[in-house]
Amino acid sequence: MEDEIISLGMKTIKEKSEIFGDDAGAFRVSDAWMIFTNDMLVWSTDVVKEMSYEDVGFKVVTMNVSDISAMGGKPMFFAFSIGLPEYDKKVEKGIFEGIQAGLKEYGMKLISADTNFSKELVIDGIAIGTSKKLLLRKNARVGELVCVTGDLGRPLSALLISLKNFRVEEDDRERIFEKLIRAKARVEEGQKLTEFSECGIDISDGLVRELKALSQASKVGMVIKSENLPISEEVKNFCEINGLDQYLVAMNSGEEYELVFTVKKDRVDEINFDFTVIGEVIEEKGVFFERNGKIEKPRDLSWRHFETSIL
Amino acid sequence: MEDEIISLGMKTIKEKSEIFGDDAGAFRVSDAWMIFTNDMLVWSTDVVKEMSYEDVGFKVVTMNVSDISAMGGKPMFFAFSIGLPEYDKKVEKGIFEGIQAGLKEYGMKLISADTNFSKELVIDGIAIGTSKKLLLRKNARVGELVCVTGDLGRPLSALLISLKNFRVEEDDRERIFEKLIRAKARVEEGQKLTEFSECGIDISDGLVRELKALSQASKVGMVIKSENLPISEEVKNFCEINGLDQYLVAMNSGEEYELVFTVKKDRVDEINFDFTVIGEVIEEKGVFFERNGKIEKPRDLSWRHFETSIL
Repeated sequence: MEDEIISLGMKTIKEKSEIFGDDAGAFRVSDAWMIFTNDMLVWSTDVVKEMSYEDVGFKVVTMNVSDISAMGGKPMFFAFSIGLPEYDKKVEKGIFEGIQAGLKEYGMKLISADTNFSKELVIDGIAIGTSKKLLLRKNARVGELVCVTGDLGRPLSALLISLKNFRVEEDDRERIFEKLIRAKARVEEGQKLTEFSECGIDISDGLVRELKALSQASKVGMVIKSENLPISEEVKNFCEINGLDQYLVAMNSGEEYELVFTVKKDRVDEINFDFTVIGEVIEEKGVFFERNGKIEKPRDLSWRHFETSIL
Repeated sequence: MEDEIISLGMKTIKEKSEIFGDDAGAFRVSDAWMIFTNDMLVWSTDVVKEMSYEDVGFKVVTMNVSDISAMGGKPMFFAFSIGLPEYDKKVEKGIFEGIQAGLKEYGMKLISADTNFSKELVIDGIAIGTSKKLLLRKNARVGELVCVTGDLGRPLSALLISLKNFRVEEDDRERIFEKLIRAKARVEEGQKLTEFSECGIDISDGLVRELKALSQASKVGMVIKSENLPISEEVKNFCEINGLDQYLVAMNSGEEYELVFTVKKDRVDEINFDFTVIGEVIEEKGVFFERNGKIEKPRDLSWRHFETSIL
């Protein structure tokens, strides 16, 4: 639905920046790129009861910074517009403190802010970054390896527990909820990647969705080895006790804020941070998952903005 | 109320850009300033029934561009986040067409956009501009003239007609509503002003409010000759038939998107666009209005976000 709105709307608008519609927009200033993104958090669709107001403020910063990182940028400035349903000092203080914590975490400065009253809490976050070189979705090339930072599956597992009453072992709860509640953007990795890679995206809507975006923009295909997906013990355990397919959870989990990127085989050993090789760029268009030697089309369950139907 | 939220919140946030809290924020890139602002439109407080969806889209652009102009900037890029209560193609098309018309009007390119569902329609607009020199609120100097572009009073008159059933003569209606419905930012004037002036602000909350902001930031006072306020015949007529004080209407009318600026007396003749000298910067702190030779403290009726009590 959102995609439909965006594509209809974007046809209406003729004038666009040189780089538009990637993880962020960008324009050149002398010998560097200014990278620019905005992403709105809406209370009724983006917040779960386990999050504090500070977590909400921090998340607005993270989700925008993650898009700057996915372009290879160094985050510099942040801005936000907030709509509050009523004036409650505690709510407002919590959110502002969360934003302050985010600015500190990512070394950013606030450049502009606007407050309003609205019928539900909305916060539009805006991030500005810079880079000499951009990681673009259209730059994946056949033969390159597909890689991902961190581990996958925890945010979706946490949502299933929070919204759909799935079971969790008490020892696993904290680790599973950690990323949904206070994910951190891959700021260092994004900047380092500009040395090794030309192509990246962040996981906000789920791995399948992001791989499709890369493949379509680059006019290539990708084959992912399901067994290679980085899945934590807690998620494996959660899936087992709830009878869920761990790979399905990992490939559809959103709000991960991990980076997916491609890299030439002969350069992969140079990368100086933790990551996992999960697959390869191929000529045949589409996104494929290989499991036990068999190729399958992935199930794109979409992410949760309006449907959380994992089952 | 909004001011209270902003000031509490802004104390929480430590890291700020070099220029923060003026009409827009700004940072240096090589020999120029990048100017940055964001301003959210909320359906329940910012839209009147006389506006079409296109007018709403155009307004989101104008209100942000006006802040760039108030800093002396040339508008370059625009971005927005929209929250829609439900998916209605007509609503969405109208708003996007209004945004497109705004981009064309101001010669801007779209750099980023985000769509969401929310309980009421909100649109956060974001504008990026550039200038070699900035007009700042803190730069008014004693002895300078206080000037304003255009005419004052039409938007407040229109609101009183729309929301409070004040009377209007049919011949005057169109001109009175014109600015509330489709105001244009003073883009050319703002850029030209950097040659003649150091200090400017745009009228979004009403002249009294903006003069207070200039005076406080510059640690000076201002005395305005009420008889000099540029008021159109339509507003004079409207005030007369409704028994309203035309100066009170002109000095409290918001969403004018006119520029208020100060200029040295010996440079005022060089200014090559239409404007009106309305007063002078003085040493005694405060904002004063002189009428029939008598000085009076202005009534700051605030603007309409939550109170529309002009009476």
